[in-house]
Amino acid sequence: MRAEVEFTEIPRAECLELLSGRSLGRLAVIYKGRPLVLPVNYALDGDVVVFRTDRGSALAGAPLRKVAFEIDEVDEADGTGWSVLVQGYAFEITNAIDHPSEARRALPVTPFAPGEKSHWIEIVAERITGRRIAFRT
Amino acid sequence: MRAEVEFTEIPRAECLELLSGRSLGRLAVIYKGRPLVLPVNYALDGDVVVFRTDRGSALAGAPLRKVAFEIDEVDEADGTGWSVLVQGYAFEITNAIDHPSEARRALPVTPFAPGEKSHWIEIVAERITGRRIAFRT
Repeated sequence: MRAEVEFTEIPRAECLELLSGRSLGRLAVIYKGRPLVLPVNYALDGDVVVFRTDRGSALAGAPLRKVAFEIDEVDEADGTGWSVLVQGYAFEITNAIDHPSEARRALPVTPFAPGEKSHWIEIVAERITGRRIAFRT
Repeated sequence: MRAEVEFTEIPRAECLELLSGRSLGRLAVIYKGRPLVLPVNYALDGDVVVFRTDRGSALAGAPLRKVAFEIDEVDEADGTGWSVLVQGYAFEITNAIDHPSEARRALPVTPFAPGEKSHWIEIVAERITGRRIAFRT
């Protein structure tokens, strides 16, 4: 007997709901032509992912620009799970004077790796996609 | 009062130990100039990460080549955690006739998203790094 797998796309609205219910995700950036992944704590403002980082983190030196941000939940025992992927552009808003940036800097983002010189980053999403995976036996 | 954060590099041998104790990680690839992240189940053979994917997965169409693979454990309550990052090259070994590839295809990799046409992929690591993060208040 072979298990079959079923992929179901998660609608954007539900992706945002899942994103708003979490605070830990993985950020991927391209550094010197290679991908780099690390865990970050985040908050959501509409469809904008906001996180903090600092110079001591693995991100220092990695050009923010095109980034991916992912959250997931996997039940390894029964082979079900889901994954939401945000693809977009990262911008530093640490010193931005516009009101949206100010509001985002007030979000309760507990940085996983804070430091003396905390930088605020937002991810402007171009594409938010999600999928559920379920086995049928 | 400000919490201070301490980063500690994890030695390679310990990174491999952490990798061998897990079976779920996140894979990042570069697709059309942007990073893409998704969860995968894996097994470790020495310092080679082995996983399975199939045509229905988000990886279909994404050129495997330079990839990153990450595992982590984060305690959000107390702000401690660790993260191990494998950076390297991905190769398909589904039909490879060499003995190492044969052995790797016998590894107990429960694919998170298997399908009829399961492909075996190995990541040849160029760089395996890890870091622990701990707050001191």
